[in-house]
This record gives sequence, structure tokens and C-alpha cells, in this order.
Amino acid sequence: MGLRYQETLTLPFDMVDVKQELKIPGFLAYCLALSGRQSELLGRADKAIFEEYGLVWVVTDYEVDIHRLPRYQETVTIETEAKSYNKFFCYRTFHIYDETGALLIKILAYFVLIDFETRKVSPVPEELIAPYQSEKVKKVARAPKYDTLGESVEAEREVRYFDIDLNGHVNNSKYLEWMYESLDYDFLLQHRPVYFQLKYIKEVAPGSLVTTKAVQEEGVSQHEIWSNGQLNAQGMIKWEKRDDRG
Amino acid sequence: MGLRYQETLTLPFDMVDVKQELKIPGFLAYCLALSGRQSELLGRADKAIFEEYGLVWVVTDYEVDIHRLPRYQETVTIETEAKSYNKFFCYRTFHIYDETGALLIKILAYFVLIDFETRKVSPVPEELIAPYQSEKVKKVARAPKYDTLGESVEAEREVRYFDIDLNGHVNNSKYLEWMYESLDYDFLLQHRPVYFQLKYIKEVAPGSLVTTKAVQEEGVSQHEIWSNGQLNAQGMIKWEKRDDRG
Repeated sequence: MGLRYQETLTLPFDMVDVKQELKIPGFLAYCLALSGRQSELLGRADKAIFEEYGLVWVVTDYEVDIHRLPRYQETVTIETEAKSYNKFFCYRTFHIYDETGALLIKILAYFVLIDFETRKVSPVPEELIAPYQSEKVKKVARAPKYDTLGESVEAEREVRYFDIDLNGHVNNSKYLEWMYESLDYDFLLQHRPVYFQLKYIKEVAPGSLVTTKAVQEEGVSQHEIWSNGQLNAQGMIKWEKRDDRG
Repeated sequence: MGLRYQETLTLPFDMVDVKQELKIPGFLAYCLALSGRQSELLGRADKAIFEEYGLVWVVTDYEVDIHRLPRYQETVTIETEAKSYNKFFCYRTFHIYDETGALLIKILAYFVLIDFETRKVSPVPEELIAPYQSEKVKKVARAPKYDTLGESVEAEREVRYFDIDLNGHVNNSKYLEWMYESLDYDFLLQHRPVYFQLKYIKEVAPGSLVTTKAVQEEGVSQHEIWSNGQLNAQGMIKWEKRDDRG
């Protein structure tokens, strides 16, 4: 059990989509910023660990269960916990609850520490992780697997100025946006996501031309992001047809 | 003098760009949501005025002076005031201050009320505007003018799923993003905006193909957004070459 940290949020219009529901891609970035505020309280701000250790946190995988997407002006509680870690991986959860305490969304994020100079994964320093009171585990949790894509629909996308974040590469949340935007507008209006998983393989640089590949079947879509002949990210989203309840 | 409302904000990483400076387009939407919170406190939430009057607020113009863009993790105070109004227009300011009280950004926004059914501009009902304690003025403040574009660089852009907001059209903040993205990545790295003005003429619908036109001269860029043979928006941005101070 790690220390828990929580904040409440009332959803403003710029965090919801045309259906008045939470925009999930931007919300992943919001949650990372929120966990950054916990780290700062614990004396482990990104800036501090960069200056002391030359290390930066990188998300490698997400697994996300969505029971219901919160709506415009709904107030939610976001609780995060750096749950456990082993030699290389740290596992953090985010639970999003509505005002009755019902669980809306559960996010599991896999983190590693990268040496900024060598770009290699670093073992997790014990004294860096100690303040979170996470459980040390031997077992490496296996990140979700991905099927090889069959016949896919491809599209090219330019990387835009505001896609680039302060780390100088395309922001993590953008990949999920690209995956959404590989699907038809009408499909997105008529379906809701109930689960998704993402894997980040290689960062995308400014000025890149990106190819999105998507396979859309009943209830599930599979996605790959490629640039310069490299696989950058994989994703899988499970969808449910919307009924009258919206 | 209208009632003032303020909030503080510490800039998270998802609100800053590759230069670690505030992303202005998304910040315009953030400020509108903030003014929505003032309206709610005054019993004039968007939902209430829609239900009581069948009216919705629409921004027609922005004029923005930028003395300095706040940076990642900087804490700013955002103060807004519904300053004055006449028969059709309401004028609202946003002042953004740093921790020493220095003015960083001043935003002037022109609003009108649209009848949701007829899509026509409605006179401002006195009892709707009363709680803001804005000054009633006879004079109509003239929105900034725009030059006819000379030889321009054109690019086509698809409207994407997350460009559409809960009003069912492309969100206002997206237009400024498109204007930025009409300029070279290197130009954006090497320059800072010191002033911009925007005019919204016609909304862009889902599924549209948009043409951005840009003329880039020393110190100033001029922009138009077109779709389906219609001029949707105009913009002008003044730029200053960045020096060593970043």
C-alpha cells in the first residue's frame, strides 16, 4: 500500500467532448500532472529527481477500465497511489469516483525511470521511491499483449506544434487522440469506450510524419502508430454500443 | 466597473508547450470556463440562461496583449471582470498576473448572446446582465480590423473528433491553434507572440475540410480560416524575436 493522494475536479467545458463526456486523452495528461503534485509534496518533484539523479519518469503502458465517463460540470474525485515497484517498474493507479462514491474509471500506469543522458532504463533507486511507501514486489507485472494487425486502414498525420510537450517529443496523450481519430465520427458518436490499453514503444520527434493503422471490428478496435519505419505505439480499445441512456 | 472574480493556477505540464511556456489557444478555453464559474456563482450559469431565455453566449472577437508568457509550474492569478455592455455586446477582461503582481497577459473578449433557435444575435436582457454589475455604455467598442490578405500560404486541415466541443462545432480555441500551425516550427521556437487579435465569423461544422491561409512578414503574421467557400475566422499575431533570455 502506497500513500494516497486525491483531488477533486469539476469538469469544465474544455475537458469534455461533443457528447459532454470527459475527453480521455487529455485526461491522461491531467492525471500525470496530478501525480506530479503528489511527488512534489513528497519532495520528489520531476525537477528534483532530474537534478539529483539525472533521471526522468516515462510511462510505458496504460490499462484503463471505464465504467462510466463523467459528464460536463460533474464533480469527481481522483485518487492516486504509487502502489508497488520492482527493480525497474513502478505501478501507479488512479481511481476516479463520482459524488456518490461509485467508481467511474480505473487507470493502471506502468512507469520506468530513464537516464536522461544514455536514454536507458535505470534501476529504481530505493531512496528515490521510499517517500511513496509503495510495496516492493519481486514479480514483474506483465503489460498487456497486442495482436498483430490484420488488414488495416492507414492514414498519415503531421505532427503539429502543440503536439510537442516540454520533453521535446509528442506528448503521450496525443497517441490516444490519433487512435480515436482513426475511427469514424459517427462510430465515435454511437459508441462508448469501456476498456483500453496502450503501449509506448518509441517517442515521436517534432517534424515527423506519422502513419496511423486501425482495424475496427465489432466491439473492439486495434491501433498502431508508426513513423520513419518504426512502431511507436500500440493500442486496443473495447467499445460498447450506446443505448438511449446516452 | 463590474464585479471581479479571480482564481490562481499553477501551470501543469499539459498547459505548456515545448518551450515550457503557456499554450495560449487552450488557455483561451480555460479562461472562458473560469468566467463560467463566476457566472454560476452569480446565478447565471450557461445552462440557466439557456433554459430561461433560450440564449447562448458566443465570443466574436479577442484582443490580447502579452507582456510575458508564464512558465511551467509558475503560479498565476487570473482575474476576470464583465466590464461593460451595450444593447448587443458585452465586454469582458481577463488580467493574468505573476506572483509579484506584474501583469503578464491582458485579454479583452467581445461577447454576444445568440438565440439558440434562430441563431440571431439577441439584445442583452437587463435582468440577465444585472448581477455582474457591469457598466452600461452607449458606445459600441469597435472590434479590430483586418487587412485583406496578400499572397498567402495555404494548407488543408481535417476537422478531428476532439476539435468539436459540446456546442457541436469546432471549439473557438482551435482556430488559434490552426493559425499557429500554419507557421514553421522553427519560427515558433524562435519568436514569442506579443499581441494577437481574432475574429470569429462563422462556425465550422464536424466533417468540414478547412483551409488555413497565412501571410508571414517580419514581426507579424496574418491568418484566415476558410471552409466550404466561407470565411470562418481572421487573425493577426505580432511576434518578437526571442533573445538569450528565452
